[in-house]
This record gives sequence, structure tokens and C-alpha cells, in this order.
Amino acid sequence: MAAIKTIGILTSGGDAPGMNAAIRAVTRSAIFSGFKVKGIYRGYKGLIDDEIVDFHTQNVSNIIQQGGTILKTARSKEFPTPEGHQQAYDNMKKEGIDALVVIGGDGSLTGARQFASEYDVPIIGLPGTIDNDLYGTDHTIGYDTALNTIMWCVDRIRDTATSHERLFFIEVMGRNAGFLALNGAIASGAEAAIIPEISTEVDQLAELIQNGFRKTKNSSIVLVAESPITGGAMGLAERVRKEYPQYDVRVTILGHLQRGGSPTAQDRILASRMGSAAIDALLEGQRNVMIGDANDEIVYVPFSKAIKNDKPIDRDLLNILRRLSI
Amino acid sequence: MAAIKTIGILTSGGDAPGMNAAIRAVTRSAIFSGFKVKGIYRGYKGLIDDEIVDFHTQNVSNIIQQGGTILKTARSKEFPTPEGHQQAYDNMKKEGIDALVVIGGDGSLTGARQFASEYDVPIIGLPGTIDNDLYGTDHTIGYDTALNTIMWCVDRIRDTATSHERLFFIEVMGRNAGFLALNGAIASGAEAAIIPEISTEVDQLAELIQNGFRKTKNSSIVLVAESPITGGAMGLAERVRKEYPQYDVRVTILGHLQRGGSPTAQDRILASRMGSAAIDALLEGQRNVMIGDANDEIVYVPFSKAIKNDKPIDRDLLNILRRLSI
Amino acid sequence: MAAIKTIGILTSGGDAPGMNAAIRAVTRSAIFSGFKVKGIYRGYKGLIDDEIVDFHTQNVSNIIQQGGTILKTARSKEFPTPEGHQQAYDNMKKEGIDALVVIGGDGSLTGARQFASEYDVPIIGLPGTIDNDLYGTDHTIGYDTALNTIMWCVDRIRDTATSHERLFFIEVMGRNAGFLALNGAIASGAEAAIIPEISTEVDQLAELIQNGFRKTKNSSIVLVAESPITGGAMGLAERVRKEYPQYDVRVTILGHLQRGGSPTAQDRILASRMGSAAIDALLEGQRNVMIGDANDEIVYVPFSKAIKNDKPIDRDLLNILRRLSI
Amino acid sequence: MAAIKTIGILTSGGDAPGMNAAIRAVTRSAIFSGFKVKGIYRGYKGLIDDEIVDFHTQNVSNIIQQGGTILKTARSKEFPTPEGHQQAYDNMKKEGIDALVVIGGDGSLTGARQFASEYDVPIIGLPGTIDNDLYGTDHTIGYDTALNTIMWCVDRIRDTATSHERLFFIEVMGRNAGFLALNGAIASGAEAAIIPEISTEVDQLAELIQNGFRKTKNSSIVLVAESPITGGAMGLAERVRKEYPQYDVRVTILGHLQRGGSPTAQDRILASRMGSAAIDALLEGQRNVMIGDANDEIVYVPFSKAIKNDKPIDRDLLNILRRLSI
Repeated sequence: MAAIKTIGILTSGGDAPGMNAAIRAVTRSAIFSGFKVKGIYRGYKGLIDDEIVDFHTQNVSNIIQQGGTILKTARSKEFPTPEGHQQAYDNMKKEGIDALVVIGGDGSLTGARQFASEYDVPIIGLPGTIDNDLYGTDHTIGYDTALNTIMWCVDRIRDTATSHERLFFIEVMGRNAGFLALNGAIASGAEAAIIPEISTEVDQLAELIQNGFRKTKNSSIVLVAESPITGGAMGLAERVRKEYPQYDVRVTILGHLQRGGSPTAQDRILASRMGSAAIDALLEGQRNVMIGDANDEIVYVPFSKAIKNDKPIDRDLLNILRRLSI
Repeated sequence: MAAIKTIGILTSGGDAPGMNAAIRAVTRSAIFSGFKVKGIYRGYKGLIDDEIVDFHTQNVSNIIQQGGTILKTARSKEFPTPEGHQQAYDNMKKEGIDALVVIGGDGSLTGARQFASEYDVPIIGLPGTIDNDLYGTDHTIGYDTALNTIMWCVDRIRDTATSHERLFFIEVMGRNAGFLALNGAIASGAEAAIIPEISTEVDQLAELIQNGFRKTKNSSIVLVAESPITGGAMGLAERVRKEYPQYDVRVTILGHLQRGGSPTAQDRILASRMGSAAIDALLEGQRNVMIGDANDEIVYVPFSKAIKNDKPIDRDLLNILRRLSI
Repeated sequence: MAAIKTIGILTSGGDAPGMNAAIRAVTRSAIFSGFKVKGIYRGYKGLIDDEIVDFHTQNVSNIIQQGGTILKTARSKEFPTPEGHQQAYDNMKKEGIDALVVIGGDGSLTGARQFASEYDVPIIGLPGTIDNDLYGTDHTIGYDTALNTIMWCVDRIRDTATSHERLFFIEVMGRNAGFLALNGAIASGAEAAIIPEISTEVDQLAELIQNGFRKTKNSSIVLVAESPITGGAMGLAERVRKEYPQYDVRVTILGHLQRGGSPTAQDRILASRMGSAAIDALLEGQRNVMIGDANDEIVYVPFSKAIKNDKPIDRDLLNILRRLSI
Repeated sequence: MAAIKTIGILTSGGDAPGMNAAIRAVTRSAIFSGFKVKGIYRGYKGLIDDEIVDFHTQNVSNIIQQGGTILKTARSKEFPTPEGHQQAYDNMKKEGIDALVVIGGDGSLTGARQFASEYDVPIIGLPGTIDNDLYGTDHTIGYDTALNTIMWCVDRIRDTATSHERLFFIEVMGRNAGFLALNGAIASGAEAAIIPEISTEVDQLAELIQNGFRKTKNSSIVLVAESPITGGAMGLAERVRKEYPQYDVRVTILGHLQRGGSPTAQDRILASRMGSAAIDALLEGQRNVMIGDANDEIVYVPFSKAIKNDKPIDRDLLNILRRLSI
């Protein structure tokens, strides 16, 4: 393999707070180690459209606290095609890019894996997604911030909730996984979390709430992971209203604000460690691995492992949630 | 009129951040001036159910920064009835309460006015509502905090918005008035505000957005006041999707989190000034007035004036919003 | 007077949150009205060093929520000299700048006034300073944010303060004026505010605190305006420790963090209204005035008035503070 | 050993955000498991003064988001004496307390260990301190919040710092350990961290800063752990001013605000898991251990181990900090 001289960075998929901190860490670690750096705008789309610029240490000054990503992201229907791959590869050659660092979720890593299977380009992935559902890493960049954003919102609803007898269903992100809903519920002192990994009967839920109301004459708060399996907050609200018309049910859908915001300390530090590790990995000759954080140690997780496997929910947390909502 | 010896405080209607700061100011100003104080829980309902306790300076320690209201609020269908009024009056007599301070929105002040028209009880109202729609006062307690909460949320959506070409409709509170939507739009740099005071054709809106997209390849954000007149964010999204199917439209409904949260400095200071002024008003023999803040001066606004009149929107702000979204 | 074609913008003096929102408002209002815009970096220094660039609507995208100022500020010993003025004027001519908008505090407006007295250049000033001490405007851009920053810090100290019997002196900015200290004290529920406008004997202070301790066994918090007159938090702590050695006295000096941070809604809206008004003023032929906000109306305040006069403190607030700390 | 029927809870030492979440978790887990609970006010002092009350699930409602501790803390010179221990034990017997849960730092755990060595009382410790310096647990309750508070403050100073060429020394807590300074520096993008574990020559520091200034014409930020070894921010500023008088050096001492504030999600979840585990530990017959969090697993750490050993700093972080400040 030829020596790597120039590294390209891109962010892809949904935004995650901390992506900018990661871009900064990759850029400065690379330059510190003697590499040149190119920033690729709008994810894989920018690789195809050749939206590529030189990146210096100054390009990443003062971005560590900014949400979003200065490199933007975008969807690209073209990239996964053979023509898309070819165009991307040609542009990389044109720009002299020898290796790629891709920051994104499992969709982005899947794209990286496919591309790497056809072309001889070392790619390192950083887990940038608020969902925390990538196997092989305890934490993904953006998860801690999203958790705190959810908690901040629920704290506010709780202020008003204690004054009235209402049942609040708050929908949070996590299409396939309940990490945000379950941990968000514990952090905000909610009564329950409805997650795709566990089936919840409306009766169980109603009993929980009944207990809450009887106890305090206050309101109850339930976090619901957006998911066809849970039915989402709207679906759940419908079912409860139908069978228990005496409850005053309210729905809040937090939506995209969960993907933004200035990253927390955890996310900035994680992004800095992972971005730095990406360069170390390339220096060690690693390729097609995702940088993971396992037991506070940096690990290399083959793309196939990171994408294909489900990350189990911590069932102890469910017990804790139940105990603490008495 | 007999001398006032004991003052009762209650909070009624929707929660507003700063209600606790107001309770604290009324309580301590009253005690400082030689009065006794009683706290009435759950608004007018507590007056009927006799949920009334003695309040001392210590009851209001360390509540200035708390959202919600320690006295809670509740709806009471009974209170507006003759029986309800009689029961309330009897309980007041029983507890020795000579005067009332009512903190709430126009519904609460209406209730106060009706009660005062039947019974000889001096009542002072404090404008506690996030809507800022009470005539006679430039600011209501809770408005500044709600504005900042909305801005905080839109800032987060903006982080993700700059990375994709989307059209975000964000629904904010303000059933009859566009203060939160219009000021929230200016504060968060949104493209437009759809408010009940101004009719907006879908074409005008689409043109605005088209301009935004063409210019920057970024997303556009529009704040929408919840109101049958605007159709709410959902209704507007439907209309736009139908006529302009090429737009990727997203809806966020902020909901009740707008009513909670630690009050801002403005709201704490306003609540402190108004709470203190309520006691001054009683000492001066005032009755059945709402404490208002006009041009930074404390004024007394007769209940009839505060409730009946519409507060006009500042049209200059509409022009400023248009200019600044080019 | 020749028609204005190009407007130059600069920020000068200490940073104030909202300066970026003001830059955005001036830039976009100017372009909307047909002007060209030039951004001048590092205040008056940039005018002398010719650090001037074209500004378009895109230069000010997404800066409304950022603290600090994208145009930076700096001190310039040269500018007030005749040579400095000449150099500045020559560069303005070179760049085609016909009018200036200066955003800063009284030092910056003084510089503007002097320059305008020698050269025929219309200058409009925007009050950008956290001190709120400019005569003619109820609010300066940055004051509300600084107030909330102080309040946020004191809230945190209060959390720990209730657990121990301590006396906290917290020093806040306001070299000549007690606005931040006094309003900050009310907003955070502190026991007292030591400000340059009022002399406070150590005995008075000690009595206040004694009252606090006796009452609650909790700590007391006192806000102190940095000022030779008050002696600052350190000086006051020394005097109290000497005469009352039984108190456990702690000092916190908030420092420069008071000048940063994402601006609040009030500051962003004020900056937007004032920035827009600056362009209106130039269109109306106004010159050498500061845009003020008086009773929520935009007013033009001659530089001489804004700089020379003291803005009185609201003495009612002192009474309210005393009442509410019982 | 007799069966445990009643558990006493106390918080001791410096405040740490999350203590209330821990009190809530211990209380509710205990009641869920059939125990009675007593709350002991003001740490060990309350055990001696018999400031002990019954605690029910309602005592801990809505405290999860509050900073500080509802049980207060205090210093007690009496407790470590034989008489103090006897008095404490007598009061425990009087109140029927069979076991203790102590939430605090190493000083509190030392007190617990001493007491447990003389009296047959099972004690479980929870690591509540912002310093993160307890051996055997990766995280202490309060550390994540303090880290974010520091980061929030430095972000604000950075806003103003980019506008001027200054050198900011920001002192953070951590008398014996550099965790907050080092991680805070990485999270806030500072240039360096001066910590007791590593000696830093003034020349090394000056070189670092020189590099920063030369590069960007902006300011530099250095975090300094309060410690006799580092000399604190003041001491360091003195040394730098003396040898490099050309630098404009500013000092900020964050002080006690680092101990307050609403706990982050991490701290609330950690406190909930640990509080719940404390009850599990007692049910398992554990005694005189501190609940630790190692590799995300709950572990029991004998008091002697938790207190006596130093927790090493992560040297990789020092390298990362250096790389990323180029």
C-alpha cells in the first residue's frame, strides 16, 4: 500500500452534535502527524460533485462548541451506484485523497463499507449519530447531547405537569432502539419508557399511570421512542384515550431539535479522542474499521460488525425506572 | 372599608415561568408591610376546597429560580357559579383573608372580576401568562422565558437545518396572538412568522421559501402561532405539501415545554416589581386592578380594560423580519 | 451631501452578546435598501490598517446566535490622533465607504464623535455594551444576556450556599454603574447589591447578613459591582473579615465570561430593531446619533448626550431588594 | 446480623450536583424493597444533633433536577471524636436506623469508615463529589455536571477571547487532581491544562502560548487546577507576567459555581443506578463499601481502597490536548 499523504473528511447522515469537534480533531491530528487534509462538503454527494476544499488548522478554529457540521451532510441516491462510486473515486484521485474518514451513523458506514469493497481506499469510520445504536461502541458522538436535550425539554414539561393532572406522552428519536427513551426517562424522572425492544400493553401502561395519579394528584410523563413498533406518541395516545377516556392526554413530539445544539463535554471529549484515534489507526495501517469506545478504551470495530449487529438494551435500567417511579 | 390584615395568594390558569418569583415577592412584601399571608393551592379550586395554609418568609425561600408554581393551578368549573363564589367567600372569611392577589392570565382575571363584582373583597391581579396578550401591560410574567425557550429550540433545529434543504414549520403557543411567533421568528432568524393577525396566502409563503432555498441551498424555518386562523403548523404543512410537493416539509410542535423552565432575569425582576407593587396597591386602597408594566413604569389597569381589549401586534417587527431574511 | 452608496460597519470596545445580531441587521437592512456594505475588522484599528472586506447577505448567515463579534474588536491608540483619523478617512475613501455604523460602548461612541467632528462622514452609533450605562437608551445590546449570565452563575452558587453558612461576595462588571449588580441581585434573590451609586457602610452590610444567618442558618449572597468606589468583592471581603472574623467569607469574580455567550431573545430582537433603524436613520439623513430604545420606541440620541450624561439607577429597585430579602 | 428495617441517608462534604437524584434513588429503592427511610440533615452533624426525619416517596418528588442537596451538608468537628461517634450511634438507635447510606467525597467516606470500625452498623457509601478522584469508580456523582459548567464558562470567555490578544488563566476545582482541568481543557478547546500530576515550566507554557498568538492573533486559554502544586491561576499569572510582561494576562477563578447547577443526564442516571445499587448491596449483606462504576458495571469498593489510593490521570488526554491546540 502506498503511503497516505492526504486525508479526506466527510460527515454523512443525520446531524449529531459533536461532529464539528470530530472534524476538528481529525484535521488537527492529521496535520500534526504530517498529513494534508481535504474537507468534503455534503457527505458522499460532495465526493461525487467534487465539493472538496483544502483544510488547514484555521478551518477548524472555534467550531468545537458548534452544533451541526461545517461540512454539512446530504442524501445521495447516486453514491451507492457503480457510476457513483466511480465518480467518487475519480474525484478522490483528482484531489490526491489517499484515505477517507467518514463520520456518521450506520447508513454512512454501510456506504463506506460498500465503497471500500470495490476500491482500494482505506476508510476509517467515526460513529456520529444521536441514536447510540452502533454495535462495538458504548457511546456514539451526539448521544449524550441528545439525551441532555431531551432531559431539558422534559424538565420544562414537568414544571407545568406538577400543576395539573395530565398524562404526557413525549416522543423522542430512536427508530430502532430505545436508548434515548429509556435513559431519557431515568434522567428526567418520568414514569415509564415505551421502547421497541419491550412490548407494553396499554393495560400495563394505564396501571402505571393510575398509580401515579392516585399517589400525587400530579401528572405523569411517559417517554416514547418513535418507532412503528411502539406506534409513536400519537398512536399510543389514541389507544389510551380510547380505553381510558378519563385521562387528559397530551402529546409532544420533540423532533429535530434533538439533533442540534452545542455538544456536551462528553461528546466533545469523545469526538476529540475518536478523531485523534482515526489518525492513529491510519498510521497503524488500519482500514475499514469504525473507531469505538469500549470500557473507555479506543477499539477498532470492523464495519461489518458495527453495522450488522443489534446493541442490546440494558434491562437493569428498566427495573431501576420502575423502582424509582413509585 | 375595614383594614386589611391578611392577604391570600393564588395562581390560576396555564403555568408561566416567574409565577414563583411573584409569589415570593407578594409574600415578603406583605410580611414586610405588616400583613399576614395565606397561600391558596390549586387556584380558585383551592379557595372552594379550602386548601389554604399560612405562608411565612421561609415558605418562599429558594423558589425564585423555579419554573411552575408552588401553589399549583387547576381548572374549576365550580368557581364561576353562585355556589362556588359563596363557598369561596365563606372559606376566605373562615381563614381571615381580607384581600386576594391573583396571578394568572385573562381567564383568571375574568374570574377575579366576576367574584369582585359580587363580594366586597379587594383583589389585585398580576399578569402571569406566557402569551403577553393582556392589554395595559407591555410584558406579562412568563413571556420573556417562553420567548427564550422557543429561541433555544429553534437554534437547535437551525443547526440541523443548515445541512439539508428542508422547510420546517414550528408551532408555538399563542392561540389568539402572534407575539411569541413574531418575536420568536426575529430572535431566531427564521424566514417568516405566520400569525392570526395577518392573513398569509400559501403563495406568499411559497415565494418566501423559494427565495430562501435559491439563495443558500439551506433550509428555511417558519414559526406558526397555534390558532384556528393560521391552521397551525400541521394545517399549513398540508397546504404547502399539496401545492408544492417538491418541498421536504417537517413539522415540530413545541407544546407545553413553552410553559416551563427556570424564569429569565426579565421575568424574575418583573415578577418581583409587580409582586411588590401589588402590596403597595392594596396599601393605597386600590382594588380590582391588574398591575401593569407600561414604559417601565408600574400602572394600575382596571380588570375590565385588561381583559376586554386586544393588544395590537407591532407591525414594524413584520417589516424587520422580512428585511432580515433576505 | 452626496448620496450614500456604501456603508461600513465596525464593532469596538468590550464584546457584547448581540453584536453579531446587530451586524446582521445592519448588513441585511442596508442591502435590502440598495446599499453596498463593507465589514471593517478589529474596530477602528481595522479602519487604519485597511482590514476591510465586502459584505453580502451570506456573510451574516447563521451568526445571530453567536456571542462575540465576527468583526472582532481591538484597541487602537492611533485612531484618536490626527494621523489616525486621516489614515482612517483615506481608507474609507479608498474603499468607497460613505457612512459608518459603529457598534460599541461610550468609548467607541466618543471615538466616533471625535472623528465626525473633523471629517464629513455620517456616523450612526449602536449601543453595544453589557454595562447598560449609555444615556438615552433604556437598554444596550448585551445587557440582558450579561444579566442572565450573572443570574445563571449565582443560581449555581446558591445551590451550594443553602447547604452551608457562608457569606458569598460575587463581583460583577459595571465599573461606573450598578445596573448589573442591582438587577442581578433582584433576579437571583441575593441579599444585597453593593453599587458605586450608593455608599454602604460595612456595619450596614454586616447587619443585613446577620439577619440572613439568624433567620435561616443558610448562606448569604451579595453582588458587588467592580469599582474603585465599592472596593470590589476582594476589598469588601477584607473589610468584613477584619471586623467580623466569625463569618466564613468567599469571593467569586465572574470576570470576562459576562461578556460572552449566545445572546438572549431580548438582545437579538433589540439588535435587530436597532440595526434596522440605523439604516432608516441614514436614509432620513440623520448623522452622529446613537440609536436608542426609549419606552420601546426607537429614538435618535445625539452622541454628545449619550456619552456625557449619567444614567440614574432606579432607587425603587433598592427598596424592592431590601423587602424581598427578609 | 439483625435484619435491616430502617435506612438512614445523609449527604456530607462539598456539594455535588446529582446528590438529590441519589437521595431520591436510595429512598425509593429502599421503600420499594420494604425498608423504612430516615433523612438525616446536615451530614454527620445532623446525626449528632438528631436532625432526623421520616422520609417517604413524596419527600423526594421533583428533586431529581435540583442541584445542591435537600439534606444539606455541614462540617462537624465533633463527629470524628469518640463522644461524637457515641452520640451519633445513640441517635441512630433512638430513631431505629439499622444501616446508613452516606453520599459524599473521600472525607465523608473516611468518616464512615472510622465510625464503622467502632460500631456494628452497615454503611454503604456513594461517591458524591465533583472531583472524580475516588479510586475504584470511573465516575463520581457531580463530575460530569461540573465539567459541563466549566465548559460553559470557558465557551463564554472564548467568545470574547477571539476578539483580543489575551492570555486567560482560568482556575477550576481539583485540589489534588487534574481531572476537571484536563478534561475541561479538551472539551473547551483550550490551549493547555496545568495540573498537579505534571510539572509545567513557565517556559514550556510561554512557548505554547507564543505559538498560539503567532498563529492566529487571537487569545489563548489555559485551565489551571487549584492546587498548591500548580500555584493556582493567580500564582501562574504572576510568574508569566514577570517573565513575559508583553502578555495581557487575565485571571478568572470559577469558584463555587462549579459545585451547583441542575445535574446533567449522566449524573442523574449515575446517581439513580448507584442509589438503587446501594439498596441491593444492603440486601446482599454488603457493608462498608463504596458503590463504584467501573466499565459501566456496578462494583463494590471497600472504603479503604476508595480512600487510600490515587486515581491516575489519563496521559493520552495530554497528548490529545497538545495535538488539537496546534
